[in-house]
Amino acid sequence: MKFPHRFRDPAWAQLALTHRSAGKPNNERLEFLGDALLGAIIAELLYEVHPKASEGELSRLRAQLVNGNALAVVARELELGDELKLGPGELKSGGFRRDSILADAFEALVAAVYEDAGFDPCRSLVRDLFGERVAALRRSSKDAKTRLQEHLQSGGWPLPQYELVASHGEDHAKTFDVTCRITEPVELVAEATAGSRRAAEQDAAETVLGQLLELARES
Amino acid sequence: MKFPHRFRDPAWAQLALTHRSAGKPNNERLEFLGDALLGAIIAELLYEVHPKASEGELSRLRAQLVNGNALAVVARELELGDELKLGPGELKSGGFRRDSILADAFEALVAAVYEDAGFDPCRSLVRDLFGERVAALRRSSKDAKTRLQEHLQSGGWPLPQYELVASHGEDHAKTFDVTCRITEPVELVAEATAGSRRAAEQDAAETVLGQLLELARES
Repeated sequence: MKFPHRFRDPAWAQLALTHRSAGKPNNERLEFLGDALLGAIIAELLYEVHPKASEGELSRLRAQLVNGNALAVVARELELGDELKLGPGELKSGGFRRDSILADAFEALVAAVYEDAGFDPCRSLVRDLFGERVAALRRSSKDAKTRLQEHLQSGGWPLPQYELVASHGEDHAKTFDVTCRITEPVELVAEATAGSRRAAEQDAAETVLGQLLELARES
Repeated sequence: MKFPHRFRDPAWAQLALTHRSAGKPNNERLEFLGDALLGAIIAELLYEVHPKASEGELSRLRAQLVNGNALAVVARELELGDELKLGPGELKSGGFRRDSILADAFEALVAAVYEDAGFDPCRSLVRDLFGERVAALRRSSKDAKTRLQEHLQSGGWPLPQYELVASHGEDHAKTFDVTCRITEPVELVAEATAGSRRAAEQDAAETVLGQLLELARES
């Protein structure tokens, strides 16, 4: 294993590498904590690196970095696979669940570092592992409405509906409240306010897209 | 405002309290970061306080603490309302969006403390604010399958389907892999492994319920 932290208490690493198929205690609870820590540390990194990105865009970028496939890639680079403690069933059935098992173990290891050494070492480790990935992730050149539309079309779902809810202010400084609503694959509504109707639609679409990708990450 | 942190740089507090209706820069990006930090700090607190809770149960407990309504209650206790910087439209329309605006400002303030003073002061503040709330939150006496069923029925959605995917091992130490699948309000599948089919069903139901509540929190 090439994991870049030397544990003071190796029991944390062992727990993080124990899949539920091997019985209890296993890494499921640590994975919950690690997922949350990873989410926060990557949020901070994106917040710094993309000072102009909207909330929805930050959320979408994070979902690209923190999902089962992407984390399994990190886990493979760290060669976590050989260290996993699996039950006999998983050992036999082998490959097909491998990605999610690796991703979960990586998240659990992030929490294990936190428990072993505290926030700063945990944060440094995550930033070292993700710094280049974050830099490589470009903000999309397509606008959010286009990306949302393409995402919905790829799943065969209905297109989003935009609605102007209200406008405020004098003509020279008007703001527009717009909602973006989708019904499938899940019902979501986001509202945004901006200085033009089009800009508010873009912001609302970005938020909906971010939530959709976040949901895909969780399920 | 009774917010228990004295900012070295008050610009962070001002940014956190500026709603998007007041123009840019506003608190939307800080809210993204604050939501993530809050999620991680509350995850750690629940992990400590409930050493026996499963991942799904931890997730469900967190969703009860970190949602728009619950955070608006905290924000009111801290008297954030009077300090909010709103645009003219929001000032006139008043009440009805107030809860989400307050909750967002609270999340943004959590991130503002992080930026102003670092992780430890931010963590202490959140733990002080949520310690009693966490203690008051009891683990439900109803089992997870019952709670999931009740939740789905309350929305008029179809009941979950449980499926035994595989069993492993010798008779005296058998483990069961079970999936829990729902189709509405969103399609979700969770898999769990346990020493009995019933226990695996409970764990899978808990995970699905946690994801559903998490989704409700985000949208």
